[in-house]
Formats: sequence, C-alpha cells, structure tokens
Amino acid sequence: MTMKRTLLTVFTLGFVLVFGSLAAAQTVDSLPSWNDGKAKQSIIKLVATVTEKGSPDFVPPAERIAVFDNDGTLWAEQPMYFQVLFALDRVKALAPQHPEWKNKEPFASLLKGDVKAAMADGMKSVVEIIMATHAGMTTAEFETIVSDWIATARHPTTKSPFTEMVYQPMLELLTYLRANGFKTFIVSGGGIEFMRPWAEGIYGIPPEQVIGSSIKVKYELRDGSPALVRLPELDFYDDKEGKPVAIHQQIGRRPIAAFGNSDGDLQMLQWTTAGQGPRFALYVHHTDAEREWAYGRKSSMGRLDKGLDEAQAKGWTIVDMKQDWKVIYPNEKK
Amino acid sequence: MTMKRTLLTVFTLGFVLVFGSLAAAQTVDSLPSWNDGKAKQSIIKLVATVTEKGSPDFVPPAERIAVFDNDGTLWAEQPMYFQVLFALDRVKALAPQHPEWKNKEPFASLLKGDVKAAMADGMKSVVEIIMATHAGMTTAEFETIVSDWIATARHPTTKSPFTEMVYQPMLELLTYLRANGFKTFIVSGGGIEFMRPWAEGIYGIPPEQVIGSSIKVKYELRDGSPALVRLPELDFYDDKEGKPVAIHQQIGRRPIAAFGNSDGDLQMLQWTTAGQGPRFALYVHHTDAEREWAYGRKSSMGRLDKGLDEAQAKGWTIVDMKQDWKVIYPNEKK
Repeated sequence: MTMKRTLLTVFTLGFVLVFGSLAAAQTVDSLPSWNDGKAKQSIIKLVATVTEKGSPDFVPPAERIAVFDNDGTLWAEQPMYFQVLFALDRVKALAPQHPEWKNKEPFASLLKGDVKAAMADGMKSVVEIIMATHAGMTTAEFETIVSDWIATARHPTTKSPFTEMVYQPMLELLTYLRANGFKTFIVSGGGIEFMRPWAEGIYGIPPEQVIGSSIKVKYELRDGSPALVRLPELDFYDDKEGKPVAIHQQIGRRPIAAFGNSDGDLQMLQWTTAGQGPRFALYVHHTDAEREWAYGRKSSMGRLDKGLDEAQAKGWTIVDMKQDWKVIYPNEKK
Repeated sequence: MTMKRTLLTVFTLGFVLVFGSLAAAQTVDSLPSWNDGKAKQSIIKLVATVTEKGSPDFVPPAERIAVFDNDGTLWAEQPMYFQVLFALDRVKALAPQHPEWKNKEPFASLLKGDVKAAMADGMKSVVEIIMATHAGMTTAEFETIVSDWIATARHPTTKSPFTEMVYQPMLELLTYLRANGFKTFIVSGGGIEFMRPWAEGIYGIPPEQVIGSSIKVKYELRDGSPALVRLPELDFYDDKEGKPVAIHQQIGRRPIAAFGNSDGDLQMLQWTTAGQGPRFALYVHHTDAEREWAYGRKSSMGRLDKGLDEAQAKGWTIVDMKQDWKVIYPNEKK
C-alpha cells in the first residue's frame, strides 16, 4: 500500500467512524415493531432525556433501573398464568407417585381435567397445587424440571412453545433500554425459580435480576454435599404492595421506569414514579382479541381497572396492543 | 502536519495500543498490597484459569460471581461489629425521646455506658437494641441516618472514620476481580440497609449487589405519597445456613468464588466450592495484633474454628493478615 493510499484509508476510516455512528444513531429504529404513536414516542423521549449529558434530567447509568412485570407484560398470561399450566402438568406427571390424589381435592378434579372444580377453593387450591408441585426437591432438581418443561410444553390454544409467546415489542424495548445503559429487572408475581432457568436466554435478564414470589429453601448437607431443599412454605408473595417491598429489598434503589399490565403492578408504578427526577410508568393494555386477548377492567386474571384510572389521571403511558404493536410475537416478524 | 509525520503518528499510535496493552497486562501488579505468597498466587491463578479462552476451565463472565462477607472480611469488626456501635450511638441520640429507657434494660445499662451489662441477655438484648434503633422510620429516613452517621462517626480506638477501616488488599482484590469480568456481591450477616448507603462509594458494589440481614418493610400511602416503613420484625438473618439460602434467593446462581473470615461464612464457602468447574474459597485470618487484631478459634466475635479446620482439610486459601498483607488500611499506603 502506498503512503497516499494508506492515508486515504485512515481518513476514510475516521470519516466512517465519526459520521457513520452519528447517522446510525439518528436513523436506526430500535423499536421496529412499535407503530409510531404516543407510546413509542414517550419511550424514546425517556431514553433521550435521561442519557443527555449535561442536562439537569441526566441520570447516571447506575441509577437507570427499569423493572418489568412478567405475566401479561413480557409474555402472555391467558387462558391462565403459564406457571399454573406448568403446575397442572406436574400434577399429572406426579400422580402415579400419589395414588391418594384420586380422592383428594383439588388433585382429584384436576386429574379428571376439571380445572374449574379444582379451583373451587380459590387461592387455597392454588397454594395446595403449587406446594405439591414446586416443593420437596432440591433447587437444582427443580431447575431441571422447569427447563425440561419449558423446552417441550405447548400452549393449549396457540400450540406454540411458551417462550415464543413473549412480546416482540417488549423484547425490543428491553434491548433498547439496555443499549442505553439501563439495567433491566423482572419483578413478577410468578415464582423466581420458575422464571430464572429461561429468562436469560429469552429476555437477556440474568438470574440475579429476576425478582418474584418464592417459597422457603433450607440448606443441608446430604452425604457431605451441600444442597438447598425447597420447602412447602411461602417465603414471599411478590404482588401489589409486595412489589415495591421486593424492589427495595433486592435492588435497594428506586427504579426510574416501571412496566406492568395489571392492578397487581400499580404499587410498583406508584413507587417508581414518586421518586425525584425523570420517571416513567407504562401499562400494557390487552386490547387485541384477534392477535392476542382482549381483557382488562373485569378480568379475573390480569385485571387492569384501578391501574387504568390512575394511569389516565397521571398521564402514564398506556400501550394499546392493537394500535401500538405491529406484531405481537417474534414469529410474526417478516 | 506533513504526510510523513501523520503516518508516523498513526503507526506509533498503533504500536502503543497493541504492544503497550500487552506489556501492561503482563507487568502491572493488580494486588500491590499483597505480599507474594501462596494466597496472592492462588488468586492470580483463579483469575488466569477462568478467563483463559478455549480452556475447559473457562467461565463465561455472566457466571463469574464472587461473594464477600463484610464484617472482618472487607472491613474490621473489633471491638464489636460496627453496626452495633451505630446502634449504641442511636440509642444515645434517641434517649431524649424515650424517657422510659432510663429504667428499662438493655437501654438503661447502655445509657450508663455499661455495654457488658446491656448485653447480659445476649441475642435478646441485641435484637431489642436493633429494633429500637433500626425500625419505625421510612427507608429513606433510615438511609439518611446511616449516611450521616458513617460520615461523622469514629472508631473507639483508632479514631478513624469507619470507612477508612476497610482492608486495602481486599479493595484491590475487588477491583482486580471486576476488571476480569467478575460481578462482586456482599453477603453479610449485617443489615442490608446499613451497608447500602456507603458500599458503592467505598467498595464499588452497587445496592443491588448487597445482600444481608433485613427487617420487614411495609408499603403504604402517606398523604397520597408512597413510603416504605421499616417494621420491628426480623425478615431474614443472613448468617451460616442463611448465606447460601440468600445467595440462592437473590443471585440465583452459584458463585464461583467466596471470601469470608469466620465460621458464619462456612456454609457459603461450602456451597460455592461444591459446584462444578473451577471454584475458589478464601478465609481472611486475623493474625496481626499489632496492625489490626488477632483472633480466631476462641473469639466470641468473628470466630474462625470449624472453618479453619475445613479450609485446611480442603486446601482453601487462608490469608494470614500479618504475613500476606503489606498494608491493612488504605491510609497506610505510601
């Protein structure tokens, strides 16, 4: 290479580096599955605001904490929470070891396929099913059970793997926030140990940033080897008032952005937006009966009623899934 | 600048970038306060092992979790845990609002300066003092109280601020591990909210990576504003068997390296080293009566007895503070 050509290369490289990156920042759409509208613009504005150096609203990266509900916010939750479907599958799998379940509710009804009868006692039934299927093994064993299930189980109506029923626009949002220095956390009413085995691969959220409900575990030595054994006892229920409590205990810093879809997330959004400086709250509103499900004010699962009122009153971002999202699931992408 | 000089600059820059960084990696001592010896070499070997690409012992950065006890491991803990000294100061500060304490133990003895009599009921006394001084305010108020105290309080014998009684060799170790892709966590028997206000500034460990004991908190709306109120009720005691449990609940991934100084850390070290692949455990042994304190097998605070036996039997790294550390505190550095 001649001296002249080398120099040319150096200058060209410099030009590409400086102007290319500027151009990229201005033209690449980080949220391609979002229709242009108020919701998308509010997200872009948040990121622009907190990353603008020298601005009074600049937020240092360490404080750019964003918290996401999971069920109904990052993935679907109909016809019932996917973790409940997991528990029902586990009841079937464990039934041969529990002949007594044939005559014992809620298991007897479940094994006959009558979910409604099984749930007759409401939360009491759910707790019994969860404890029978989520406790009594080591944490390593439970991780394997969840990993095996999530790799093979299919949704009852779409027949898709559950990990393909995550929301493509939200995946883009997670990536976009992280690319702008945010640290993303899940804060879910679901079980921590049900989410951790796949959350990193699907959402890019490592186990230490997954917060949720938990049962107690006990440390013991088994033949000299340490094990953590899952006990049939609730440790923490991460819903409603529990969410800001868990955020405080496990993150220890108030988030600047919170994302939810139901009244169970309201306290998390209140807590997040009550801090000083720029704050952001977003509700995903399920309005698309055709591509997903439409529910909200009167739904027994994922009810969004008080939260919707407060979001409207306070000017929080409300995502109208039908209007705001070009696609729902990753597989719809062209 | 002529073409020739520009080219020269470009080549020189390239040379400096490529060879300079190689040289730096080979010659800069990341642990200058550690004497060359088995302990220092074992740490360097750990880092070399897990970061060597293509090696069967390579550990991806996301799995390079390192957990550190705090009292006696990252900072001193004599003549008693610094958080207890904080609580005693708080009793004095709060006494005017509690005239009944004059006739109520353990407060009466404490206010007379008789710590031994105050502790007559052991853990019961400690719990009463902790709850009287650590609960009953919002989390924001407590953070201010801790921040004010840590900025002004002095150690009873050294007269140093407590944040200057951290161990310089351990500060270097934290930095060295993070520079090699490790994520560093505190896992302490001390209170999470007592550590978080200063751990980031002193140790470079953000609030979400501080794990410890906690009391319960409650979410409530005060005049429409959300607040988290600290309740006089233990939530979690993060010591002994509690440490692997807390690591599981809050990190969700088994650490590959664990650092402690007492029998209270033993289960954490067992849990860490029982995993597959390269594993590392280190005990700081307090052997320097002159520069710090010498204690261990028979100490009531920071006892290292069973742990020392197990460390010797299993070949864990044991730091002999007197032999292995050139300096103890940052201010001793020349």
